[in-house]
Amino acid sequence: MANEKTEQGKVKFTDVNSLGEFGLIKHLTKNIELYHDSTIMGIGDDAAVIASDATMLTVVSTDMLVEGIHFDLMYSPLKHLGYKSVVVNVSDIYAMNATPKQITVSIAISNKYSVEAMDELYEGIRMACERYNVDLIGGDMTSSPKGMTISITAIGEASKEKIVTRKGASVGDIICVSGQLGGAYLGLQILEREKQLFLDDPDIQPDLDEQKYALGKQLKPEARKDMIEFFEKKEFVPSSMIDISDGLASELFHICEASNVGAYLEEGKIPINQESELLALKFRLDPTTCALNGGEDYELLFTVKPEDLEKVRLMPSVYIIGEIVERKDGVKLHTTGGNIHDIKAQGWNHFEG
Amino acid sequence: MANEKTEQGKVKFTDVNSLGEFGLIKHLTKNIELYHDSTIMGIGDDAAVIASDATMLTVVSTDMLVEGIHFDLMYSPLKHLGYKSVVVNVSDIYAMNATPKQITVSIAISNKYSVEAMDELYEGIRMACERYNVDLIGGDMTSSPKGMTISITAIGEASKEKIVTRKGASVGDIICVSGQLGGAYLGLQILEREKQLFLDDPDIQPDLDEQKYALGKQLKPEARKDMIEFFEKKEFVPSSMIDISDGLASELFHICEASNVGAYLEEGKIPINQESELLALKFRLDPTTCALNGGEDYELLFTVKPEDLEKVRLMPSVYIIGEIVERKDGVKLHTTGGNIHDIKAQGWNHFEG
Repeated sequence: MANEKTEQGKVKFTDVNSLGEFGLIKHLTKNIELYHDSTIMGIGDDAAVIASDATMLTVVSTDMLVEGIHFDLMYSPLKHLGYKSVVVNVSDIYAMNATPKQITVSIAISNKYSVEAMDELYEGIRMACERYNVDLIGGDMTSSPKGMTISITAIGEASKEKIVTRKGASVGDIICVSGQLGGAYLGLQILEREKQLFLDDPDIQPDLDEQKYALGKQLKPEARKDMIEFFEKKEFVPSSMIDISDGLASELFHICEASNVGAYLEEGKIPINQESELLALKFRLDPTTCALNGGEDYELLFTVKPEDLEKVRLMPSVYIIGEIVERKDGVKLHTTGGNIHDIKAQGWNHFEG
Repeated sequence: MANEKTEQGKVKFTDVNSLGEFGLIKHLTKNIELYHDSTIMGIGDDAAVIASDATMLTVVSTDMLVEGIHFDLMYSPLKHLGYKSVVVNVSDIYAMNATPKQITVSIAISNKYSVEAMDELYEGIRMACERYNVDLIGGDMTSSPKGMTISITAIGEASKEKIVTRKGASVGDIICVSGQLGGAYLGLQILEREKQLFLDDPDIQPDLDEQKYALGKQLKPEARKDMIEFFEKKEFVPSSMIDISDGLASELFHICEASNVGAYLEEGKIPINQESELLALKFRLDPTTCALNGGEDYELLFTVKPEDLEKVRLMPSVYIIGEIVERKDGVKLHTTGGNIHDIKAQGWNHFEG
């Protein structure tokens, strides 16, 4: 829907009420393309219809994003938000070593959102569907007394031999991560600081050029589709895997608990981008703590059997950061200073917000 | 979790913060049973895992319920709400002539909810899972700045020959409905009235005994699992079908639009329960309008090819209410007084709320 200009030259926004629930869904999904033959029927009936492949297992994951808890529209552009909300869901599917195929998107919005705002959100969703090759097959659109809530369910598939859970880590397995950590958390710190500065003085112009990496990690994260493709190419299957949404420490605890093992990480091996390191110091934060407990990096944390190590050693952006040990040895950090500390599973507790 | 009593004898409620996200999920889902062998893995990893059956198609439907829009906790007990939120989703799967197998449940809640309140909600969800034989396989649990939002995705299956969409209605097909209409809407009117009376005078004791049917339809609706089973037994497949969530008129328009046909309904044939009729008169509402435009009855509206009519004529609780005509003849009501009126698709527009 092109923005019309009023006589005063201001952009005119269209009230979502003017289209109604079904009209709005039709409008927002008119440019949605379907990529998979297995998507027999998408939006427009009581349910979507998918063809099954008996050689494959179906994987299903769901996430809910709430305004004021998971995102702040003061600094999160709606297009980025739409993109990110798909990314966090397909990331869970990749974390099973599976390929996402379909998503459903349900959204509750208050009256303050215009049709044009929803167009932006759906443009981000559409871009992510294109990038990750997933079909938007259904959803729900309703009003909310306050704010926006986005709930996405992702459906994917993998062969029985390839599915990777959190359960398979064994003593002696090597712990790897698919990329640098802490960036998304530091990006959030910048945005929170800029918001505060703006609230104090709306005329201030932020200079964010030197912080592009961290801002990108926070506002437009990517899921590691490429890693799953590398694994496939190298005929490699991790012994366990999880995506880092709540922070390295919290995810490592999930693997250790599910696999009934312990682990240690080498502080010096945890990959931290140089910009993140400088930002952490600027915010008087410990870079390792940001990497361990900052969330939303959406990298993959996985374990590798010793005999498979050669397969991953030369993969781009794979970092070896530690080893699985016996349960009784706990979950520890070997610091660069030569000390050994317990790692605590802080993660993000949204209920403490 | 058993309620502890404080020294003053009051029931002590447990703050959801005390368990954290993962602890709360573990606590709430500890009694969840899995009924299907095809559910390979449920809650507890990045995604759930389902085995596919190549002879079947997968159907997926999703719905979002928002406090203050779809439910009011002043009169909707949490156990009923949990039950109903599952029912509205499996109803969409039945409307495809399919069998629901799995659901995911995502919930955002504000700090005002205790663990005990969530226990009630999940008890309702668990009861509905048992009644409809579906596996709770995953979800998300997060906080919200205000109120509660529930998002459920239901996954089901049906053979290719049995799936029924909104598209297959042809001129001459008979229009049927699986039960009496308008009850849920009138139940809502009672509850809204009682809420107003209570707000005016909190000491008043409501007498709701004579209105059990309508209150039941509103607070604890059931999805028509039995109808799908009847269809199967009689080897009958409707030519088109939809569930009545937004009202008979609105759903009939969906069928007519998708099938490119028109329709007429016989006012005298629209099934309205006697209690509903009396209630409508009490509220000075037209019973037919309540049946046409009142939502949330979750009955099935379906069309039958003339040659199949014998199969459904003797099914319990099936009412023949009209016929499919050509598109150009529109969507009409033949009144008991002998007049013909256009039917308008009012339904529930949540954006007008």
